Amino acid sequence: MQDRLAAVRAAMQAEGIAGFLVPRNDEHLGEYVPANAERLAWLTGFTGSAGLAVVLPETAAVWSDGRYVLQLASQTDAALWERLHLTEAPPAPWIAARIGEGVLGYDPWLHSEEGLKAYREEGISLRPVARNPVDVAWRDRPAPPLAPAVPHDVAFAGAGSAEKREAIAASLRAARQDAAIITDPASIAWLLNIRGSDIPDTPVALGFGIAHADEAARFDLFMDARKLPPETRAALGNHVAIAERDAMPAALAALAGKRVRLDPAGTAAWFADRLREAGATIVAATDPCLLPKARKNETEQQGARAAHGRDAVALTRFLHALATEPPRDTEISAAARLNALRAEQAHFRGDSFAAICGAGEHGAIIHYRATPETDRPIRPNEVLLIDSGGQYDDGTTDVTRTIWIGPEAPPAEIRDHFTRVLKGHIAIATSMFPENVAGVRLDAFARAALWQAGLDYDHGTGHGVGSYLSVHEGPASISPYLRPATIAAGMILSNEPGYYRPGAYGIRIENLLLVRPADIAGEKPFLCFETLTLAPIDRALIEPGLLRADEIAWLDDYHARVHREVGPHLPSAAQAWLAASCAPLQAAA
Amino acid sequence: MQDRLAAVRAAMQAEGIAGFLVPRNDEHLGEYVPANAERLAWLTGFTGSAGLAVVLPETAAVWSDGRYVLQLASQTDAALWERLHLTEAPPAPWIAARIGEGVLGYDPWLHSEEGLKAYREEGISLRPVARNPVDVAWRDRPAPPLAPAVPHDVAFAGAGSAEKREAIAASLRAARQDAAIITDPASIAWLLNIRGSDIPDTPVALGFGIAHADEAARFDLFMDARKLPPETRAALGNHVAIAERDAMPAALAALAGKRVRLDPAGTAAWFADRLREAGATIVAATDPCLLPKARKNETEQQGARAAHGRDAVALTRFLHALATEPPRDTEISAAARLNALRAEQAHFRGDSFAAICGAGEHGAIIHYRATPETDRPIRPNEVLLIDSGGQYDDGTTDVTRTIWIGPEAPPAEIRDHFTRVLKGHIAIATSMFPENVAGVRLDAFARAALWQAGLDYDHGTGHGVGSYLSVHEGPASISPYLRPATIAAGMILSNEPGYYRPGAYGIRIENLLLVRPADIAGEKPFLCFETLTLAPIDRALIEPGLLRADEIAWLDDYHARVHREVGPHLPSAAQAWLAASCAPLQAAA
Repeated sequence: MQDRLAAVRAAMQAEGIAGFLVPRNDEHLGEYVPANAERLAWLTGFTGSAGLAVVLPETAAVWSDGRYVLQLASQTDAALWERLHLTEAPPAPWIAARIGEGVLGYDPWLHSEEGLKAYREEGISLRPVARNPVDVAWRDRPAPPLAPAVPHDVAFAGAGSAEKREAIAASLRAARQDAAIITDPASIAWLLNIRGSDIPDTPVALGFGIAHADEAARFDLFMDARKLPPETRAALGNHVAIAERDAMPAALAALAGKRVRLDPAGTAAWFADRLREAGATIVAATDPCLLPKARKNETEQQGARAAHGRDAVALTRFLHALATEPPRDTEISAAARLNALRAEQAHFRGDSFAAICGAGEHGAIIHYRATPETDRPIRPNEVLLIDSGGQYDDGTTDVTRTIWIGPEAPPAEIRDHFTRVLKGHIAIATSMFPENVAGVRLDAFARAALWQAGLDYDHGTGHGVGSYLSVHEGPASISPYLRPATIAAGMILSNEPGYYRPGAYGIRIENLLLVRPADIAGEKPFLCFETLTLAPIDRALIEPGLLRADEIAWLDDYHARVHREVGPHLPSAAQAWLAASCAPLQAAA
Repeated sequence: MQDRLAAVRAAMQAEGIAGFLVPRNDEHLGEYVPANAERLAWLTGFTGSAGLAVVLPETAAVWSDGRYVLQLASQTDAALWERLHLTEAPPAPWIAARIGEGVLGYDPWLHSEEGLKAYREEGISLRPVARNPVDVAWRDRPAPPLAPAVPHDVAFAGAGSAEKREAIAASLRAARQDAAIITDPASIAWLLNIRGSDIPDTPVALGFGIAHADEAARFDLFMDARKLPPETRAALGNHVAIAERDAMPAALAALAGKRVRLDPAGTAAWFADRLREAGATIVAATDPCLLPKARKNETEQQGARAAHGRDAVALTRFLHALATEPPRDTEISAAARLNALRAEQAHFRGDSFAAICGAGEHGAIIHYRATPETDRPIRPNEVLLIDSGGQYDDGTTDVTRTIWIGPEAPPAEIRDHFTRVLKGHIAIATSMFPENVAGVRLDAFARAALWQAGLDYDHGTGHGVGSYLSVHEGPASISPYLRPATIAAGMILSNEPGYYRPGAYGIRIENLLLVRPADIAGEKPFLCFETLTLAPIDRALIEPGLLRADEIAWLDDYHARVHREVGPHLPSAAQAWLAASCAPLQAAA
């Protein structure tokens, strides 16, 4: 690692810069990146999904957020890196205090204009680099992925690409925009009804696009020709023009004089630079696919229910095995067993993310991923947290269960914490709220029971989930951040409050929710949630005395539904276990 | 009104502008303004506390927010004005669609730079006017107020002005700022320990200031010399330099080369224009007095408790009279009686705002103010909403009670609505939350019980309150708006959920809360609320079956406290009534 840092510093000197920013992003500015874009991990060792490093001549620092505090400390070398919290010690002032009059370099493909603002506002001199110093130093850097893009059947998508493109083009015309820059591969996948496998777990094909506002709803797709087999080209049709990435500068130059929509927070600064050079007018607005992609149509909603039903069978079989067999798994082998059970289900395409299986103290590392070095057996009398999900043709799942590995009864303190997390989960699941409410307004419902005990968790409560797409999808979320995106009918959001006791255990209870119009004659339109995820919640960890009658009723109803819908699809031994696991809490208490 | 509009249009033509903005603000950009700044009311007739008009050659529009929908419609002439909702049909796009290439004029003393942004972003050409066309047209415009500024005793303020100024100067030096522009009269009042009576109900003396960062903590006060009697000058001391308003341009020019702090959202654009001309560096940041003023010191906290105790005696006597005498008041006479009862209390200085006394359907007009034209008797068997407050040397109060005027029992629907509002009130009062939480994160606690029934209210849940200062004080609030200011110990916030049935009745239950460190060994610092306001909540309007056991316990505890603390200070007839009004709900139900 020391050699890598030295090589980057040498390349920085050649560029004439006093500092260089190394974000976790690739050119699409998304959360999941291919191996050739894992610059932050290559340079620092940190493999979390959110982070940033800065290299200065004599010093260097790496940042991540609350989910990764422990992982950041364990994966990076304190002798080389200061390890900092993104919100508590933000990068821009830290750099400003150290770089003085020196120039801070950045790769214009890896930062949005919005993202660079914080540095400008601190008075830092910024300059785009000609060659990324990490790419110069990284000699055995992998080649970009070349997985094929395949058609996504309209039987799952619910609407054809032409229909979607025409709707987007109409929305652009209504806003007097001539074209929109689309650099999120999930938006391209949704709009063109294609799926790929360029990056792990998220079924997208990496590429860039320009959506035109004309009546033909033309789309320029910039993607390596080797990734597009004939059947995909045929499915894309005549109005999707395919070109290589090196054709992009000319295509952007051709937008001279046009009003071009671009998300300054979600698009690499390179695009805005080219459009300004070309004399196009940039209209700052979000990716026009974001909202229609998030609001699942009827077909996608039915698909989500079906996918969750099959996913529940796999997860329940796994929970049954864990509960009834003597402990024999390690964290890694347990996750592999769950993956194998999912693989038996129809339409399974792979995990939706690398499962988090954290036994005991590992559960407290919020986004823990077991490695061969950290893997350890699951032991009796400890808490096990397992957060996993599957990709299916008809939907994407994401579920967390926290279970007690007996045979002894769990300590009262753990039951108290688990029950407070459950109260938060139920509060979100049963909430009803007007249209046009930002997720930040609901977030505290999930925390109130923890707050009353002086406890909290350092992550959001819910994120959007795609339809056989990314397991983390915008624009809405349920989180403490003051984001203006509002919750709308058809969105799928996670509901995952937690509690983490460092060095001891982690608790999280996660179901996915479908946003639906509330069945109530309100004074204005109201929304509510339908819980999609079906799997028992470990009653051994519940302290019934902490639950109100309405909370117990929710849990009993939920368990009755799990038993009714999942039970018939299980082997008989698992059926009896599920029946017992889903018995009413009242009777059990 | 038609003549006034015509005169403004004539003055606009002389300025060469195609449109002119008429905000509710005065030069201090605050909520309460003196009579000579009531330009919006003079021009449109609308007297609400938030609004904006725009005059174009052929058309004109006036905006306000949800609180004032009905009032806006009733006070303005539809033949002259389009009446619009600030968030549903915002002014900037409305103007942009109509003004075309024409220039929109504005008075640089009446808009912040931040406030003008929305018009610029719509591509509107803006120009500051040399003479405000409303001022040209308004021939009998009142003179500016000249009420004396008087010292505010340190026995109430809890800290001397020199001590406060030194703390502010130190905070400026720590941020490498040489000076700060202070244009909020409440900040000047707090910092200099002076009070005034230039505007109704808010005890400030209008003026402007420059706080210097030097060791002497010098302060330049720009205020009409006639407002400063010798004892005030003596109290201000040697480090406060007094000058007339026309000395301001030179004082700002003298800041050439300095780093000057200015709130671009809270300061008239005129100041930034002068500083830029002078070559000063503007550092955008909030008024440095905002946070220390909001966080009351121990003396102010004790003062608030004492003022609320006395205010409770007045309000309880009023509620007793209403409950036991046959209805004989009108809305206006009832508010006058309450004012007279407050005036009997020690340290009373006046109302803290014009009371809202809304009987029956008037209660549904959220910020209703009875006028001789609208005033009506309080009748049997209706809901009465009364929102009022007092200014005392030791604190400011703001309280709303909604009461049922018998003799019949209230309908079940009203009791349902009242009880849902009460549940929201209790949820806020009992909430516990970490430090650094923005108010938007708590707001939905107040709405959840209404939302479950498809109901809501179109105003915030809580605002800050000053210490013998403005009844509406920043920076924190509890509201649906995504404002970043966080709640901190020592702040006083209102807790006032409501429900409004247009044409029928209004419900609001408001107490003031003091933010305190929570008495809990949390994993990080937690805060909670101490309820300051003491007055019975009308049990006739409560449906006990809708309340949980913990909610009933809160209400009974609160009523026991009201009885214990207020009872001994009442005449004996009122004592018996209060005892009955504060009896436990359990027993009563």
